[in-house]
Order: sequence, then structure tokens, then C-alpha cells
Amino acid sequence: MIQKHNNPLRGIIVPLVTPLLNDNVLDFEGLDNLITHVIKGGVSGIFLLGTTGEAQNLSYELRRKLIKATCEKVGSRVPVLVGISDTCIDESARLAAYAARCGADAVVAAPPYYYIPGQVELIQYYTRLVSKIDLPLFLYNMPANVKIYIEHQTVLELAENPKIIGLKDSSANGVYFQKLLYSFKNKPFTLFVGPEEMMAEMVLMGGHGGVNGGANLYPELYVKLYEAALTKNMEVIQQLQSLVMEISNSLYTVGKYGSSYLKGLKTALNLKGICSDYMSEPFNKFEQKERNILADRMETIEGKMIL
Amino acid sequence: MIQKHNNPLRGIIVPLVTPLLNDNVLDFEGLDNLITHVIKGGVSGIFLLGTTGEAQNLSYELRRKLIKATCEKVGSRVPVLVGISDTCIDESARLAAYAARCGADAVVAAPPYYYIPGQVELIQYYTRLVSKIDLPLFLYNMPANVKIYIEHQTVLELAENPKIIGLKDSSANGVYFQKLLYSFKNKPFTLFVGPEEMMAEMVLMGGHGGVNGGANLYPELYVKLYEAALTKNMEVIQQLQSLVMEISNSLYTVGKYGSSYLKGLKTALNLKGICSDYMSEPFNKFEQKERNILADRMETIEGKMIL
Amino acid sequence: MIQKHNNPLRGIIVPLVTPLLNDNVLDFEGLDNLITHVIKGGVSGIFLLGTTGEAQNLSYELRRKLIKATCEKVGSRVPVLVGISDTCIDESARLAAYAARCGADAVVAAPPYYYIPGQVELIQYYTRLVSKIDLPLFLYNMPANVKIYIEHQTVLELAENPKIIGLKDSSANGVYFQKLLYSFKNKPFTLFVGPEEMMAEMVLMGGHGGVNGGANLYPELYVKLYEAALTKNMEVIQQLQSLVMEISNSLYTVGKYGSSYLKGLKTALNLKGICSDYMSEPFNKFEQKERNILADRMETIEGKMIL
Amino acid sequence: MIQKHNNPLRGIIVPLVTPLLNDNVLDFEGLDNLITHVIKGGVSGIFLLGTTGEAQNLSYELRRKLIKATCEKVGSRVPVLVGISDTCIDESARLAAYAARCGADAVVAAPPYYYIPGQVELIQYYTRLVSKIDLPLFLYNMPANVKIYIEHQTVLELAENPKIIGLKDSSANGVYFQKLLYSFKNKPFTLFVGPEEMMAEMVLMGGHGGVNGGANLYPELYVKLYEAALTKNMEVIQQLQSLVMEISNSLYTVGKYGSSYLKGLKTALNLKGICSDYMSEPFNKFEQKERNILADRMETIEGKMIL
Repeated sequence: MIQKHNNPLRGIIVPLVTPLLNDNVLDFEGLDNLITHVIKGGVSGIFLLGTTGEAQNLSYELRRKLIKATCEKVGSRVPVLVGISDTCIDESARLAAYAARCGADAVVAAPPYYYIPGQVELIQYYTRLVSKIDLPLFLYNMPANVKIYIEHQTVLELAENPKIIGLKDSSANGVYFQKLLYSFKNKPFTLFVGPEEMMAEMVLMGGHGGVNGGANLYPELYVKLYEAALTKNMEVIQQLQSLVMEISNSLYTVGKYGSSYLKGLKTALNLKGICSDYMSEPFNKFEQKERNILADRMETIEGKMIL
Repeated sequence: MIQKHNNPLRGIIVPLVTPLLNDNVLDFEGLDNLITHVIKGGVSGIFLLGTTGEAQNLSYELRRKLIKATCEKVGSRVPVLVGISDTCIDESARLAAYAARCGADAVVAAPPYYYIPGQVELIQYYTRLVSKIDLPLFLYNMPANVKIYIEHQTVLELAENPKIIGLKDSSANGVYFQKLLYSFKNKPFTLFVGPEEMMAEMVLMGGHGGVNGGANLYPELYVKLYEAALTKNMEVIQQLQSLVMEISNSLYTVGKYGSSYLKGLKTALNLKGICSDYMSEPFNKFEQKERNILADRMETIEGKMIL
Repeated sequence: MIQKHNNPLRGIIVPLVTPLLNDNVLDFEGLDNLITHVIKGGVSGIFLLGTTGEAQNLSYELRRKLIKATCEKVGSRVPVLVGISDTCIDESARLAAYAARCGADAVVAAPPYYYIPGQVELIQYYTRLVSKIDLPLFLYNMPANVKIYIEHQTVLELAENPKIIGLKDSSANGVYFQKLLYSFKNKPFTLFVGPEEMMAEMVLMGGHGGVNGGANLYPELYVKLYEAALTKNMEVIQQLQSLVMEISNSLYTVGKYGSSYLKGLKTALNLKGICSDYMSEPFNKFEQKERNILADRMETIEGKMIL
Repeated sequence: MIQKHNNPLRGIIVPLVTPLLNDNVLDFEGLDNLITHVIKGGVSGIFLLGTTGEAQNLSYELRRKLIKATCEKVGSRVPVLVGISDTCIDESARLAAYAARCGADAVVAAPPYYYIPGQVELIQYYTRLVSKIDLPLFLYNMPANVKIYIEHQTVLELAENPKIIGLKDSSANGVYFQKLLYSFKNKPFTLFVGPEEMMAEMVLMGGHGGVNGGANLYPELYVKLYEAALTKNMEVIQQLQSLVMEISNSLYTVGKYGSSYLKGLKTALNLKGICSDYMSEPFNKFEQKERNILADRMETIEGKMIL
């Protein structure tokens, strides 16, 4: 279990893609390969059932299978964080209890995403949620999917709770994150940034790391970029940041839906022979045409990587 | 089971409040009272697990208990519709299967509400969903909670599917609903309007009825207003519409959160001795102060009712 | 000048298209034709410089020319309302003064649309605006372009001001409009609805008329529909409402931008030989291909009109 | 005039507050003081009539007076950029022509902000706008006020135009800005960031500077932070960034409206004896109570400044 005050989590956490063979059929072999790949790549932790993990599309049974299989495979090599975001607090708590039994280290929860709670309701919600679970919790700010921000003042109040140990911000709002960095300077509260395009700058400014989807595919790249940012090595940052941006601009932009990022990532993993590219409803995997575009772009990017 | 071509559903469908004694503890006695109350009041159907039913806040176990208890209690007196909106298509399908086993007549589903699907993805999503279930399905347009519209053209395409029999629109967008009325004129596709404030006008213009929260509290009022609209009795409409608007303006506006409507409704039902006013997370029931305000306002409204 | 208490404005107000020959060159002949056309068609008033009039795209000099020419042409046949919506209160006041000198009867103002005022700031804004002008003012609720609603409570407070005589609501939100109808029942405050698709139902429910773009093209249709709604003639309403919906569905949906409505309307007027189809920046007039589609659709619609 | 290829603008541009004595009465003395203050503080340029300058609230006559007075006062000491954002392209062009006659160096334009243009319409709009003006133009991305982004691909296309020399981004979206930095690496296109909270990180990552409101008040602070970022002096950055965040957290958060930032800045300038604190409609200046809070907070901040 991750402690708030000692050995806090730092670095690159991979928001793990969920390998699937079919509707609600886990790709166990692909999952094994993926875990081996990212741990070998140096990630500091694995985050299951986030937005990149297609969590909300998956049945509860599949979510539990994924948690169990991942915890077993990972062992104690790196911490495992489990997404428990739900609209029902008791389903969140049940999933957290299951994750704890499997040996997970922490849970991550976005605000409930059907009704639109006020900030006071949100404070109470998280307070009750952590009272129902044993594992420490990371807040998950994700306004594009959840409709609301966990506002700055709300985070300040919730951080007083010893079981709420940090926040992952996927808003891409640089002012919001800077305000958190300022408010939590030298305090035991971990701040991760979601969008990989912003990870380096935010670590330079005091952030604790990134929860970056691209780390499924090229974990070493993100780890090295994180380390360069930690040691303020601006030359290496500039060089690796270009690769991260090329990934963002070319691998996540095939296709015309909001799901382009998820599909690009999963197809790229399939092209590398790591796992299946099956997508959960309501998404579809790419056709051959898009696979070919992606394969070409990966070749270009990998040609530039001298890691 | 409701057929698309014969005996279609018409009139006032009550989006049933879910009576609770505590977190995930159903108020069976309150549920019995409520069902008796609304059927006596003349509603044409009961819709479980909608937005007014706090569905997304409830555990799956509780949702199943509610479906079973309601179907048993209602019997064949009025059709029972069951909300199966979920972010995971298989959880929706499982709930639909359970509802069918309990004897429900139809299901109702909003678009998946975490990821933001494109309209093409939405067509495919609903097509697959109905292929997985036996009961007929109503589309549920609810952009405030779901972030997207089921667009006009999408409804037209989905209505070709024999198992998709109608739509409930809770957008409050009069142009959207008029476009649907025009497109489905004389076609076997049922169009219900969610906001009770707009029900009379939409029935006057050809809509088939309302799924109106206030029918939990004063079912006769909404049924009579529907009948007046159906028979174009403008005098009665004007008189009853005023009562509906007074309910909307005074009973749903105590408190300062988006949940004022839900709390107002449940507290009013409690004040009438029908069921408990316990609210599911992340909502809180009203304090005594708000109860008193509500009691006063109910007295005023009921004083004006000569039903 | 329109009085709040006597002879209030009722019926169909046409939000006049602004005929242009070129960038900032008024099509005076087209304007003459258009005014003759709509007055002959029976409109109750002419509203210049609204959203349909492309007001915000036009230079102040052109706006003044349009006001002067229109007031001269119209004379005292019908009231002329002038849109003075602006981000700068003094530019609004100057335009209002000019409109008064030209003989206009009232002005219409949306909230300032760059900064986002709070509702308290909005009350003060309108209060100061009317203190700077002599003509009576209609509020203009237009959240799609202005970003905010003039909220229900704000309208109630502003309506206390004797110079604020009514509101045009272009939100398409049926609940919002019903709440206004209820609050202003039997009070001297005029409520017009913008979207023509909702006009009939809102007049049935007590609204005072519509400010409907289609009345530029087929003024008689909207006037007859209004009259049918006023006299509760449901048979005529059903018949004419179908034509209004067909216009909405077929003439306003050519082209792929938000400006399809404006372009469709102006091109249709040009096809009828009434005025030029030139569009102000940043819009473009339709190409021949879209003109042909529109011409076909107009023929179909006009074939169904027996007015 | 600023050239695209030689001597491009870099550093801190101050989006100048517009000192006012009353409605549409310029505070000339305050303007003189303010210009002297910011030039002495080392800013690289002055940007008139931006969002911080309350531009949209001001009459055209006042805008012209401000441009003339500022250009005369500044002389050739630093470049003067003039905001010409408008909903009417010809009003923008007229203001640009006036600015050129007064000796301004460049203009800045947000997309038209009433109607919602598509991206193709936006490309055409800016292309026509620069064809009508002589000065070079900066794009101004401001989605909170303008409703749309100038999308990444749109910026790429517009940057091909030799008269479009850069972009100011006020979206606070770190991913958007990083994509621009990557796309324009080593290309003659200037990228400024609006929110001061993000300036240091964006300059570290390759941005060319900031257009930061706080530079009205404490120009040296922002200039020194910019220089530290340019020279990658992380220690100084951390120290000065804390001050910038304290300003953001304490001086821009008095009051409850969206205008808190504008009011805080103007009141602080007044407290320092630089200019009047009069606010243009629809804003109000702070009352004594808020002034006192602000004065206390300034004292705290200034106590920490050893510049």
C-alpha cells in the first residue's frame, strides 16, 4: 500500500491498455506481454481501469479478472493502482475491496459522472468513499468525460484526509495544475499530469510524474523524458519532447472520432506484437487501411529513437 | 411486451422515484405505497431507474431488487419500463435480461455517458444493444447528463430497427422535439417528452405523452393535463398548466444544487406519507428547514387543486 | 413608440434579413422589395439587426443606413424594432439614439457577448442601458451566441423597469419559456419566441408571438399559423406546422456550417427575386450547386402551400 | 513594423490595462504613468485593447484615443501591438488602419465572437482580414470568450500567410500550446502564452514569451521570470514562479465574478498610485472592503519580492 508520507509514488505511471480478444474476453497473453513490456521499460507503476483502459466500457466481471491477473503478474515489482471511478459509490467501494484483496496498492477515482454534483457534494462524496475503503486514493480530475472539475479549493480540503494521497489531472489546463503545484509545494500530496504532451514541463515545475498513455507503447521514452525533467537536463528534454509530440501528432490522430487516441494506441501495440487490438463497445478497431497508415508512422518515429 | 405497431404506449409514464431506507436499502413499503398511489392516479406506465429514479447512484443488486419488487407489485395493471442506461453495453444487456425475466414490458437506454461517442458509433451501439436483448427499447435523449444528443438523423436511422419503438426526450429543446414530431408523423414510433413543463404543448402538437417526475406526487394532475391536451381542451389546459408550473417553480427550487428537483420530489412524497426521503450518494436529503419550506408550498399548491 | 401597457406588440415580427450587394454595400432595391413583401404578408412588425440580420458582421455605418432606409420605407405601417446588441454599452446607446431619430419604435438587446457577465452585473447592465436611451427595450435571450442565459429571476427583476417591455427568447428551451409564460401571466410584459418551429405551441400556451426568420420568405404562412394558434384552430395549426417544419428541415439544412440557416434564407429570397444573396464576412453565399438544391426544395414546399 | 523573419518579438508583452476616469473618459495621466511604469520594468512590448484592456466594453472613439495617446507616449521605445478583435471585419480593418497611422507595430485579432464560424470560414476570414490591412497580425486564441479554438491545423495553414506572424494563446490548454511549439519549431512564427501562471514552463519548452496581465503591476517580476526561463535558471524560476502564483491566487480572486481578475489588477494599480480604478460597463470597481483586502495581500506579496 502506498503511504502518504513515506516513499511516495513518483515517475511514469502507465495507464494500462486493457487487452481484449472479444467482447468481455480478456487477452491474458497480451496482458502478460504488455506488463512485461512496461516494467522492462522502467515505469514506476501500473494504473488499471483508467480512461485509456476503456474501464467504463467493461463489465464488472472483466474488471475483476483484469485486476486479479495484473496483480498476480506484477507481484511487488511496481505498485498497482486501480481505477474505481463509478456513478455508484458502493460499486466503487466493492471494486476497491476486491483490488485490496488482490494486492493492489492504491485506487483512483474520478467524480461520479452521470449526475452533476456541486463541489460541497463532491467533498462529501470523496470523504464517504474513502471511509468505505482501505486502500489510499488518488483523485482523478477529468472534466472532458466527467463534466466538472474537482476545483482547486475542493482539492485543498480533500487533501486534508490522510487517505487521499494525490491527484491525477487530465484536464490539460496548465493554470489549474500550476495552482495545485503552488498550493501543495513541500506537502505530502502527489500530483500527476495526464496528458503526456505536458508531462516534461510539469515535472520541471515541480510535478511528481505523468500518467501517460504512450508509456504502454514506448515506456522507456517517457521514463527517460521524466528523468531528464527531474534532473533539469534541458537538452535531452528538447530531444525527447519532440518524439513525444510526434507520437501525439501522428499516432493518435488516425480516424475521425474522439476515440482516435485509444484506437491508435491499441493498434500500435498490436502492430508491435504485444496484444490484440480488439476494442470494447461502443468503439471499433481500425480497418487495414488505418493499420497501414499507423505502421508507416511508427516506422518513421522508431527510426528517430535512439534511446 | 410493448409492440411497435399495436397498442402503443400513450399518456403519462411516471419516472418512478426509488424509495430508500438507507444506502442501498430499498424502502419496500414506500415502494408499495408509491406504486399504489400512481396507478390509482391513472398513469399509463411506470418507468424505473431513470434520472428521477437515481439509477446511476444505485448498486446493481439494488437495481435488480427494485425491478423484481416493482414488476411483482404492478402485475399487468400498467406496463413497466426499465432504465438500463450504462456505460458498459453488457451490463445494460444483463439488466435488460433480468427485467425481461421479471416481466417488464420495455427498456429505456440513454447513450453511454463516460466516453463521448460519435453519431455513427451511437447507431452501431444501439443496434448491437437491441441485438443482445429481447425487450423493445426506447431511446433516451438526455444531453445534460450524457453530454451528447441522439441527433435527429440518428433517431431516424435507429427507428428503422423494429425493436427500437420510441424515444423519451429530456433535452427541453423544443426545436429538436418538433423535428422528431414532424419526421415521425403517422409512423409507429412513440415520442415522449421528459420535462413536465412542456408536456401539454407537445401533446397538443402530436406528442404521445410525458415521462414526468411530478406524476410521482400528483399523478392525477398530469393525467388530466394529458387528457386535456389530447382532446384540445384549451381551458382545462391553461388551468392545469398553471399548477404544473407552480409545482416546477416552487417545489423543485428549494436548495442550491442541481439535485434540488430530486430532493424536492422525494421530500414531498415523504411529507405526504408515501415513502422515505433518503437520498442516494452523492446526494443528501433535505434538513428540517427545507422540509418546512416545502410543506408550506405544498399546502399552497394543494389548496388550488380541484381535481 | 411601443407602450408597455397599451396596444402591446403581438403576432409575427420578422427578423429582417439584411440585403447586401457587396461588403458593406446595402442592396437598397432588395430592401425595398423585402419590406413590401413582408408587410404585404401581414407581419406585425419588423426587427432589424438581429441574428438573422447578420448584425454583428456589419459596420456601424451600414447599420445606420439600414435603420434609416427601413424606417423611411416602412413609415408608420408597422412598428420597427432595432437590434442594438453590442459589447459596448455606449455603442448600443448611440445606435438606439439614431434609431429613435429615424422613427423606430423599440430596441432589442442581447447581453454583452465577449466578457461573461454574472446575473447581478446583467441586471445593472440593462438598467444602465435603458437609462441611456429613450425607446422601450426588449430583452433578447440568445445563449448559443452570447454564452449565458438571461436567467428567469433576472428577467423578473428587469421587467419591473417600465422601459423594459418584453423578451425575445431564442434559446429553444421550452422549460425556460414556460416559466416566463407562467411568471408573466396577465402582466404587461411581451414574450416572443425566436425559433419558428416552436411558435405555434408557444402561442397556444400564452406566448404573444414569434420573431421568426422564415417570415422573410413566406410571411403569410407564419402569420396564418400565428392566427390559428391564437384562435386555437388545431386543424389549421397541424396543417401549417407541417409546412413550417418542412421549411426548417429542407431549406435551412443545405451546407455544412452553422450558417446554413442564414444562407438558406438569403438564397431563397434571391431565388424568389426579392433581394441579393450576398453574405457578410465571415460567411459566403451558396454556390450554384446549393442554389439548385434549394430551388428544388422550394418548389416542393410551394407546391404544398395553399395559403 | 514587426517583421516575420527578422528581429521577431520576444519576451514579456504587457496586455495594457485601459485607465479610465469615467464611462468612455480616458485617464490620460494614469495612462502616462502606466506606460512609464511598464517600460521601466523592462517589457518587450505593449499590447493595447486585449481582454485585459476591456477592449470590447469601450467605444470606438475611446479605442482610437487610446491608440493615439499610447503610440505618442511610447514612441519607438518598445513595439505597440493593437487589439482589433471585432465581429465585423471592416471595423477591425478600420481600427488597424488607424493604428498604422498612429505608428503601431502590429495588430492582434481573435476570431469573430458572435456567430460561430467553422474552421474553413476562419481561414478565409483571417486571410481576408490581412488583405485589408498593412500591419502584420498575431492570431489570438481565446476560446473562453470566443467560443471556438483556432484549431491547430488552422493555425498551420494561416501561418503560411506572410502577414500572419504569430499567435497569442489564452486557452490555458497545455496540449494545444505544445502542439504549436512542436509544429513551429525553428520556423518564423512567434508563440506567446497568455496565462502568466504557465509562462515560465512554456518558455522553458520553447515558447517566445508571455502576454501577461500581471506585468501591468509588477513588470520586472515577469521580465525576470522570462529571462530565467530563457536561460534555464531553474532556481530563480522556482522562486519567482511562487510569487507569480501568489499574485494569481490572492490578487485575482477577490470578488465573486469572472471579472475578479480585471478588477483586482486595476484596483492594485490604483493602490500603487499609477492610475484610476474605474471599470467600464458591465463591470464595477471594487468597494472599500475589497480594496482593503487587496491592499493587505499586496503588502504580503511585495514583502516577499527582492527583485
